[in-house]
Amino acid sequence: MINILLNGCSGKMGTTISSLCKNYPNLKIAAGVDKFISKSDYPVYSNIFDCKEVIDVILDFSRPDSLDSILEYSKEKNLPIVLCTTGYTSEQLSKIEQYSKVIPVFRSANMSLGVNIVNNILKKVSALLYKDYDIEIVEKHHNQKVDSPSGTALLLANTIKAAIPEKTDYVYGREGSGKRQHSDIGIHAVRGGSIVGEHDIIFAGQGETIEIKHSAMSRDVFAVGALKACEYMGGKPIGFYSMDNVLENSI
Amino acid sequence: MINILLNGCSGKMGTTISSLCKNYPNLKIAAGVDKFISKSDYPVYSNIFDCKEVIDVILDFSRPDSLDSILEYSKEKNLPIVLCTTGYTSEQLSKIEQYSKVIPVFRSANMSLGVNIVNNILKKVSALLYKDYDIEIVEKHHNQKVDSPSGTALLLANTIKAAIPEKTDYVYGREGSGKRQHSDIGIHAVRGGSIVGEHDIIFAGQGETIEIKHSAMSRDVFAVGALKACEYMGGKPIGFYSMDNVLENSI
Amino acid sequence: MINILLNGCSGKMGTTISSLCKNYPNLKIAAGVDKFISKSDYPVYSNIFDCKEVIDVILDFSRPDSLDSILEYSKEKNLPIVLCTTGYTSEQLSKIEQYSKVIPVFRSANMSLGVNIVNNILKKVSALLYKDYDIEIVEKHHNQKVDSPSGTALLLANTIKAAIPEKTDYVYGREGSGKRQHSDIGIHAVRGGSIVGEHDIIFAGQGETIEIKHSAMSRDVFAVGALKACEYMGGKPIGFYSMDNVLENSI
Amino acid sequence: MINILLNGCSGKMGTTISSLCKNYPNLKIAAGVDKFISKSDYPVYSNIFDCKEVIDVILDFSRPDSLDSILEYSKEKNLPIVLCTTGYTSEQLSKIEQYSKVIPVFRSANMSLGVNIVNNILKKVSALLYKDYDIEIVEKHHNQKVDSPSGTALLLANTIKAAIPEKTDYVYGREGSGKRQHSDIGIHAVRGGSIVGEHDIIFAGQGETIEIKHSAMSRDVFAVGALKACEYMGGKPIGFYSMDNVLENSI
Repeated sequence: MINILLNGCSGKMGTTISSLCKNYPNLKIAAGVDKFISKSDYPVYSNIFDCKEVIDVILDFSRPDSLDSILEYSKEKNLPIVLCTTGYTSEQLSKIEQYSKVIPVFRSANMSLGVNIVNNILKKVSALLYKDYDIEIVEKHHNQKVDSPSGTALLLANTIKAAIPEKTDYVYGREGSGKRQHSDIGIHAVRGGSIVGEHDIIFAGQGETIEIKHSAMSRDVFAVGALKACEYMGGKPIGFYSMDNVLENSI
Repeated sequence: MINILLNGCSGKMGTTISSLCKNYPNLKIAAGVDKFISKSDYPVYSNIFDCKEVIDVILDFSRPDSLDSILEYSKEKNLPIVLCTTGYTSEQLSKIEQYSKVIPVFRSANMSLGVNIVNNILKKVSALLYKDYDIEIVEKHHNQKVDSPSGTALLLANTIKAAIPEKTDYVYGREGSGKRQHSDIGIHAVRGGSIVGEHDIIFAGQGETIEIKHSAMSRDVFAVGALKACEYMGGKPIGFYSMDNVLENSI
Repeated sequence: MINILLNGCSGKMGTTISSLCKNYPNLKIAAGVDKFISKSDYPVYSNIFDCKEVIDVILDFSRPDSLDSILEYSKEKNLPIVLCTTGYTSEQLSKIEQYSKVIPVFRSANMSLGVNIVNNILKKVSALLYKDYDIEIVEKHHNQKVDSPSGTALLLANTIKAAIPEKTDYVYGREGSGKRQHSDIGIHAVRGGSIVGEHDIIFAGQGETIEIKHSAMSRDVFAVGALKACEYMGGKPIGFYSMDNVLENSI
Repeated sequence: MINILLNGCSGKMGTTISSLCKNYPNLKIAAGVDKFISKSDYPVYSNIFDCKEVIDVILDFSRPDSLDSILEYSKEKNLPIVLCTTGYTSEQLSKIEQYSKVIPVFRSANMSLGVNIVNNILKKVSALLYKDYDIEIVEKHHNQKVDSPSGTALLLANTIKAAIPEKTDYVYGREGSGKRQHSDIGIHAVRGGSIVGEHDIIFAGQGETIEIKHSAMSRDVFAVGALKACEYMGGKPIGFYSMDNVLENSI
C-alpha cells in the first residue's frame, strides 16, 4: 500500500484524483493539503508541515507558488514527489532539477498515460515508416483554444522529427497549387465545439494507411497518469523521473 | 431495359462500366464506340454513326474532342446523352447547354453518387447546425494531388457557405495564436500515400459532434454514378439534367 | 427573454443547465426548485408552489415522483412544460399525454440535439441509400453499460428500418461462415473504458462509403437540448411537442 | 541492384508488381515466367528453366501447383525465393520448410507491410495497455467476404491474446443484458459494399482511448510487401524468413 499526501486536494483535479484513487487497491490518499478545507475521507491540512500521517509519496496538483514548501517538506521527510502542477517558470524548473539530486522527483510534460504511450510508439516506428509512408498529424480541440497546433501535437511531431535521420519540415495546412514533398510533416489543427483533445497520426503509404490515434474525453486522464506515477515512485531512489520511466520497461 | 451506347468503351472507365453494368438488371451495354476495338460482350464500332443496335441512352466517358460527333449523333437519333467526360473548354460547355434545348442532356460536376448525396444533406442541415456547431472540413488525398483543397472539398464548402445566411470565411489550416471565430469554416487538406479521396465534414458543438464523411475507395464510384444517370435518363424529355435531378425526389 | 423555472436545479443536470444557460442571451433561469437548496444566482424553493417569479416555461430535470406536482402547477399557471426526466412508468406517460390536451407539453426520447438531427437525416436518406449501399451501425459506450445495443442505436436502427420499404433484419455481430444479406442491418456494440457515447451509421456502396456519426463527449448535450426546447416552447399553444418539432422546419 | 525473376508475371499481382517495381531504384524485374506470355519490359518465359538472365531473387505470385518447379530451380541455382502464393496444402508448407534448410526461403501469413507493423506494435504494447484499457477490434470488409472475423483480425487478436499473461476471451458482437468483462476482447465484423479491408484496434481507458488502425485501399499493399521482401532477401544466407525479419531491427 502506497500512502499519498495530496497537495491541492480540494481543487478540481484533487477531487478527481480522490475519487479515481478508489479504483487502485494499492494506493490510498492518506492526507490532503489545501487552503480550502473541503469535506473528504482523509484529514486535510492547510499547512503541509502539520501532516501527521505516514506518507510514502507526495502528489502535487496545485499551483506553482506552492513549489518551495512542498520541495522543502519532501526533502525534510525524504519522500518521493510527483509534480503535476503546470506553469512553472524556468527558474522553478531548474530548482526542481536541483532537488532531484537529493530526493526522487517525478515530472512529465504530459501526464496522460495514453499520450506518452503514443509518443513511445512513434519513437519506435517513425524512422521505419518514414521510408514508405507520408506522415501527417490531425489534431482536434475546442473552440476556445488559443494556440495552434496544440502543445501535444508539437510534442508528437518533434518525436517523429527526432526519429527520422533526414531533415523534415512542418507544414500547417495547405492551400493553392503544389505537390506534397515526402519530407513534409503536415500538421492540421481542427478547432470546434467542446472537443477535449484528439491527436491522429497518419502514415499514408502505397495502398494502405496506418493511423495511431489518441482521444481524450475528459481531464480524468491526467488524474489516472498521476496515480500511475505515484504507484511507480513508491520506494524509488533519488533521481529525476518522467512518464517515460513508468513505461520504459514495457514498450 | 435501357440499352446503352457506350462511347469510350475500351478505356479504363469504359471497361469498369461494362463490368459493373452486369449488376443492373434493367441496364445493358448494347454497343460500344472506341478507336481501339477491344474484345467485349457487345459490338464495338470505331465510328458512332456505324452503330446498328437499338439504343435508349448514350453514355460518354471519352475525351473532350469527341463532343461534336456524339452531340450530332444524339441529335440526329433524338437520344438522351450522359456526358461524363471531364476537361471541356468553356466553349464546349456552352455548346452542351445549347444542345440541352433540343435533346435531353445530363452533366454533373461530380459523378459520385455519394458526394452528391452528402452535398444534398449539407444543403438541408448546414443553416440549422451553424447556429450551435462550428464547421470544419478535413479532406484527404494522395501525395500526387497538386491542388489544395480538393475541388470536391470546395464544392461542399460552397454548399455550406451558400446555406448559411451570415457571412463565413474559409480558413486553410492554423498556426500561431488566436481563437477560432464562429464564422470560420476550417478546411484542412491532408496529403499522403495513395489515398483515393476522403471528405469529412465536422459539426462540433457543446458536448457533441456530428460528422458526415464520404470515402472513395476507387474510381468505380464514377462508373456507378454514370449507370445511375443512364437509368434516370431513359425516356426523359428535352432539358438539362444533373445528379441533383437523379436524387431530387429522394432527399 | 424566456424566464425558466428549473425543477431539480441542485442536481447534476440542474447545475449544468444553470451554467450553460448563460450562453443563451434570450433565456434566463428565473427560479429553481429542489429539496436541496444550493447556492445559486436565482431564488431556490423547496416547494414549486412557493415560486413568486414571473415564469414563461417550466424545465424539469428531476425524478419521476415529482411529476404530479409539476403538471398540476403547470396547469394552474397555464405554463408550457419541458419534461427531461427519465424513467417514467407507462401510467405516468399516459398522464403526460392527457395533460398535453390542456397545457403545452414537451417530451423527447433523446434530448440530444445531435442525435435528433442524425435521426432526421436518416429518415430522409435511408430509403434512397438502401438501394445501393449496405447499412451497418457501430456504437461505442463505456464498460459499465449493461444493455447492448444502446437505446439510441435501436432508435436510429428503427428509423432506418421504418424508412425502407423492404423487410430488413438486425444482425448483432458476426462469427463464422456466410455472406452478408443486403437486407441485413449490422449493429455492433463496442464497450470499453469511459466512452460517453458514439453512433456511426455506415452506408457502404460500390467503391465508396458514406458515414453519419454522432459523438457525445459529455452529458452537456442533454442540457443544451433542454435549453433549445425551452427556447422553442416559449409561448407555444396547448399540445404535445418533441425534439422533432424543434427541428421540423429545418431539415 | 537486385535482379528479380518474377514467377506469375502476367497475372493481376504480377502486373501490379512490374508496375510498382519502377519506384524502387535498387530493384529490377530481370525476367518473368508465365504460361501466358504478355507484352512486357523484360523477357518472359513459359518454363522457368529457360531463363537466361542473371537473377538475385525469385519472387513467386502464382499458383500452388508451380511450387515444385520453382523450389527445384531455386535450389539448383542457389537463389533466395520469396513465396507470396496463397492456398498451399500442409504438405506443401512442410516441403517449403524443408527447402529452407538448403536455400533462403521467405514466406509470411500476410504480405502487407502495414499489417505486419501493426501486429508488431501490438506485440509490444498489448500487455502494458491491458492493465488499464479495454481492448476491442472493429474490422470492415466488403459484402462478398464469407468468413467472419477476417483472418487478419484473428491474427491481430491472437497476437494480443498471446501478449497478455491473463486468460482473455473473444466476444463476437453483443446483444442483450450484461456488462463487459475486462478479460473480453470484442471483435466486430462490419460487412458492406466494396470495402477492401480495415482493422481498428481500440484500447479504451479511463477518460481516453488509443486506436491503432490499418486501412488497405487496394491489393497494391501485397505487391509493395513482396518488393520489400525481395529487397531484404538479396544475398541472405540459407534459412526461413518472414515479414517479421524484414521489420525486426526496426521496432
